[in-house]
Amino acid sequence: MPLVRVSAPRHLDDTQLKHIADSIHESMVATFNVPADDRFQAFTRHTDSELVCAPTYLDIAHTRSIVFVQITCNEGRTVEMKKALFARLASSIARGGAILASDVIVSLVEVKKENWSFGNGVAQYAV
Amino acid sequence: MPLVRVSAPRHLDDTQLKHIADSIHESMVATFNVPADDRFQAFTRHTDSELVCAPTYLDIAHTRSIVFVQITCNEGRTVEMKKALFARLASSIARGGAILASDVIVSLVEVKKENWSFGNGVAQYAV
Amino acid sequence: MPLVRVSAPRHLDDTQLKHIADSIHESMVATFNVPADDRFQAFTRHTDSELVCAPTYLDIAHTRSIVFVQITCNEGRTVEMKKALFARLASSIARGGAILASDVIVSLVEVKKENWSFGNGVAQYAV
Repeated sequence: MPLVRVSAPRHLDDTQLKHIADSIHESMVATFNVPADDRFQAFTRHTDSELVCAPTYLDIAHTRSIVFVQITCNEGRTVEMKKALFARLASSIARGGAILASDVIVSLVEVKKENWSFGNGVAQYAV
Repeated sequence: MPLVRVSAPRHLDDTQLKHIADSIHESMVATFNVPADDRFQAFTRHTDSELVCAPTYLDIAHTRSIVFVQITCNEGRTVEMKKALFARLASSIARGGAILASDVIVSLVEVKKENWSFGNGVAQYAV
Repeated sequence: MPLVRVSAPRHLDDTQLKHIADSIHESMVATFNVPADDRFQAFTRHTDSELVCAPTYLDIAHTRSIVFVQITCNEGRTVEMKKALFARLASSIARGGAILASDVIVSLVEVKKENWSFGNGVAQYAV
């Protein structure tokens, strides 16, 4: 059910993008109770002027190779699950070499189960 | 008040995109109590590597011609209204021929009435 | 902590985009208790067919040079703070000359403090 929207720098090539996409999905499956075939991800590549951050926030330095990962998902995950997701996401993405763990920014938006349709006009999760 | 963000495949031309835009808006007017001139939609076209889904989820197959429709709207609609919106959205979009009903993915994000400004810096819905 | 996603018309150049980016951030710092180095903004430029609005809503006319500013932020701001943000955002952006105050559309999405990671895989705001 999660819908994942990622803002990435334009210079990333398709192989680097695929690594990020796979890392995000693998992390959600491992820590967030997401089924392996529940995968809906949209990536947008931005020029330098379109992707803006301060050089440092909370003592973490940021480069121009920053990614914003916004995940819309059902409410109900615990704080521990969120922490586990964040940790795995950053280390898994960083393993690809294109993005530092310090440049993985994550935002979760939680919604009700009834707020989804996964095709054919049906609210598959509504009770 | 809804803000509609759609991720669509790059190969859609402007006529196909307009059909999707009109379908979404018409469906929201018909089922979701949205005024006819309350229309704010942003479309982003993605390459194949930028728009990712699993081949099947919940027994529904997906092609590369998938669209993600994310609608930010005020809280308070009933589950029945949401079901009606999803059903109409999928059938209306599919009528255009470019996207199958099975490839219409919808995500609703609900917010408070006071969370909007529709121009001139005013919170038009705040009480 | 806010993540700001802006949909803007394609014809805006980098200088005009930077004015909008700076205006949004300056307004959030001034009215919304956002630290000066807490800045994460992604801009997407859209063609005319990709950025859709009705000519008028709530007696406010809209041109093709419209911007949608969607801000994901922590819950807890008062209605007065939201009103102050909207007012400052519209006037500050309009000062740049490329976008009218009537064409500044704002949407707030509020989330829990624990829903963020600002790098290194840590939920910096979780208690």
